[in-house]
Amino acid sequence: MFTEIFLPELMGTAVLLLLGGGVVANVLLARTSGGGGGPLMINLGWGLAVFAGVYVAYRSGAHINPAVTVGLVASGDDLGGDTALKVPVYVSAQLLGAFVGACLAWLVYRDQLDHPDSDAEDKLAVFATGPQIARTSSNLLTEVVATFVLVFVIIAFGRTPSGLGPLAVALLVVSIGASLGGPTGYAINPARDLGPRVAHFVLPIAGKRDSNWSYSWIPVVGPTIGGILGGLVAAAANYV
Amino acid sequence: MFTEIFLPELMGTAVLLLLGGGVVANVLLARTSGGGGGPLMINLGWGLAVFAGVYVAYRSGAHINPAVTVGLVASGDDLGGDTALKVPVYVSAQLLGAFVGACLAWLVYRDQLDHPDSDAEDKLAVFATGPQIARTSSNLLTEVVATFVLVFVIIAFGRTPSGLGPLAVALLVVSIGASLGGPTGYAINPARDLGPRVAHFVLPIAGKRDSNWSYSWIPVVGPTIGGILGGLVAAAANYV
Amino acid sequence: MFTEIFLPELMGTAVLLLLGGGVVANVLLARTSGGGGGPLMINLGWGLAVFAGVYVAYRSGAHINPAVTVGLVASGDDLGGDTALKVPVYVSAQLLGAFVGACLAWLVYRDQLDHPDSDAEDKLAVFATGPQIARTSSNLLTEVVATFVLVFVIIAFGRTPSGLGPLAVALLVVSIGASLGGPTGYAINPARDLGPRVAHFVLPIAGKRDSNWSYSWIPVVGPTIGGILGGLVAAAANYV
Amino acid sequence: MFTEIFLPELMGTAVLLLLGGGVVANVLLARTSGGGGGPLMINLGWGLAVFAGVYVAYRSGAHINPAVTVGLVASGDDLGGDTALKVPVYVSAQLLGAFVGACLAWLVYRDQLDHPDSDAEDKLAVFATGPQIARTSSNLLTEVVATFVLVFVIIAFGRTPSGLGPLAVALLVVSIGASLGGPTGYAINPARDLGPRVAHFVLPIAGKRDSNWSYSWIPVVGPTIGGILGGLVAAAANYV
Repeated sequence: MFTEIFLPELMGTAVLLLLGGGVVANVLLARTSGGGGGPLMINLGWGLAVFAGVYVAYRSGAHINPAVTVGLVASGDDLGGDTALKVPVYVSAQLLGAFVGACLAWLVYRDQLDHPDSDAEDKLAVFATGPQIARTSSNLLTEVVATFVLVFVIIAFGRTPSGLGPLAVALLVVSIGASLGGPTGYAINPARDLGPRVAHFVLPIAGKRDSNWSYSWIPVVGPTIGGILGGLVAAAANYV
Repeated sequence: MFTEIFLPELMGTAVLLLLGGGVVANVLLARTSGGGGGPLMINLGWGLAVFAGVYVAYRSGAHINPAVTVGLVASGDDLGGDTALKVPVYVSAQLLGAFVGACLAWLVYRDQLDHPDSDAEDKLAVFATGPQIARTSSNLLTEVVATFVLVFVIIAFGRTPSGLGPLAVALLVVSIGASLGGPTGYAINPARDLGPRVAHFVLPIAGKRDSNWSYSWIPVVGPTIGGILGGLVAAAANYV
Repeated sequence: MFTEIFLPELMGTAVLLLLGGGVVANVLLARTSGGGGGPLMINLGWGLAVFAGVYVAYRSGAHINPAVTVGLVASGDDLGGDTALKVPVYVSAQLLGAFVGACLAWLVYRDQLDHPDSDAEDKLAVFATGPQIARTSSNLLTEVVATFVLVFVIIAFGRTPSGLGPLAVALLVVSIGASLGGPTGYAINPARDLGPRVAHFVLPIAGKRDSNWSYSWIPVVGPTIGGILGGLVAAAANYV
Repeated sequence: MFTEIFLPELMGTAVLLLLGGGVVANVLLARTSGGGGGPLMINLGWGLAVFAGVYVAYRSGAHINPAVTVGLVASGDDLGGDTALKVPVYVSAQLLGAFVGACLAWLVYRDQLDHPDSDAEDKLAVFATGPQIARTSSNLLTEVVATFVLVFVIIAFGRTPSGLGPLAVALLVVSIGASLGGPTGYAINPARDLGPRVAHFVLPIAGKRDSNWSYSWIPVVGPTIGGILGGLVAAAANYV
């Protein structure tokens, strides 16, 4: 279970957050070559981060997201047996991998993160998501709907022949980011938000703001609910 | 016919409009993270909305567009038999799905749609298309030509081997949007425009303008004509 | 030879120019929804225009470009026999198709092309290419090199397995446009430039400038030389 | 070894640098049609340059990068035998090809490179990478991490079925550029930086600055270390 699940999930999620945090840093922080890339570059960057992460985690089924793990289980997938044991292995590897990946992104962009011309809000955005209009019910709902689409369509992939491989899920994440990411920054993955938020909290970053812990439960609870709903509806509508 | 056509078409078109309406909201409305994404982000977002919608509607042949349904029939496709019965099933599912998807996009972007800094024209654009220069003959012709290309090339796909699956039609929609979407916003799909226009009409949105009903027949009639022509020409030119 | 070569080449090249001319119109002309899309949107739009055109012309081998036709012949491809007869069939279909496609783009963007806020240079750019710095030797060389890459890499495609189908050549055209299109607007296709330039000359467009005939031989001669060189080098280096 | 390794690696790396240098020239220099394309266009352009280069170098395994060659060897790949002999053949072909490609990009953009409105820093950027914040330890680390990801994920590709072919590595390079390219411009390839830097040094370019030789060892040493680490970790973690 270590080499077949824990290690690939950890490494895949680390690559996801290294590249995902990296593109936000590149576009938003001062003194990078990516300034002016805009939201499309961030969306494409996150999608391609998933692309790379899925290759790295292929051996374990490439969940790299607790919402996908619980969504698959909700849809009736037993993860090849020993489900109750495997779920915590998946989730802990994903959380740890996300923390490690965020630390690697920090290493790459350390000088930019410490730079006085970089905004404290943008420094946090390299690590964690946040709402454009803070309102609990709306923000939670947005994360539920966006993660529902993620898990539901991933399950629908299985029924459609194509040679896209990991590109399909990458393009789906670009789509969700471009379309549903506007209000909350599309965590759609509890590990993606919580692991790096802890990294933001513990890492020495000059001029950083607080890690906005009061918001931190929404990108955990919303995606978890959305993933479970996605799995349940996919099963009920015969997509499994 | 319910589980094999109505349900997948409804769900596929709902996903199409949730993601398609979403990307317009993300780029155009106030207080989102997608501001400044520009027209390319909107084009890519709509193409990827088709990508996801086609996966969801794969079981029913993934029309998710009445112009595709009637275009295929015009090309000689009998939809597997019972054509006269199936066409209204497809079309009603598509219209209802488009309405549902637009309501979901409204749920996700409710605070942005109600925000006083969002423009009333942009609020309508989240739901329905409109012309940049209002002139009936030109607008109608643009929708006819754009939908002709959509249906004609979709039929041509069938003759060309590739492993792209739903990505092919997604890229075609990006192409049509980028190239032929300038004058009217490329409805190229009667359901995509009419269903969400009804949603715009009935939903409570602060500071919304009227739903521009006088224009509403063009994105219904134009794509229908274009789709039928696309099917007829494809059959005449031996692409079927 | 009519239904297997002339018709698909004509229709494929018409779709290429309808979509290719369209994206330039959408980004550059006044009163469109594509304003501000920038050069990347134009590059992607032209690449996807090739994508659609190749599907439409698949039956004839999807040259849709005289430089590809002569380049393949130069590489030793006999086009399936009767080469000396087929080459003029290909080229005349491509030229006529490019003219037809440009006229269709004019129909779609007629109000924008006639609009006084659209610049006369931009109106010409919808149809034909032109240099940023006019200097015959440099402009010719740029078109030779860019078309050499096009034909050489297209021939190299044949040796590499992938499921990309028409997407491969589309991405190659995006690449050449983004990388080598800066100085002259990458005609890389004699038909793509000459057919639409004739359309610009004959069509009634309010406030148009002259059709810049003094430059018109460069995007014909340069790509022809580049295509032949590409075919010869590919053959010499064993890529055929 | 000449026709199976040296020639395809030389030609592939030449195409890589012609297209890669070209996109930087198109976006950054004065008097091009690519001005305003921004960092995303540069990232996509480089990724597609890899796409084309990989097709051209397919026969030799398409390394077109010394860091890939040494990384594969570090992972246990013997390059089909005669490894100690082949490595210098690969690397010398890559270095020479990069120099040749940069000279071709210079030919295409000569008038723009000589133009007084083009910035001397941008002229150098067409050829070689440079840091946004010059600090040896950070810059070296960034190149190590970015190249580690490149080589590690390329090796992981081998375990995952897909029909993407050369598009997979192209998208990976877009990802690394968008995400990890901000601080140093992602050389991630010793040949890509050193060959063109020599070209910048020897070519007659009006108003050029010095070739920043003091930085030049970082994009050679960093990617070499990162490639070796990527190969070693991939082998240790059973991705080979």
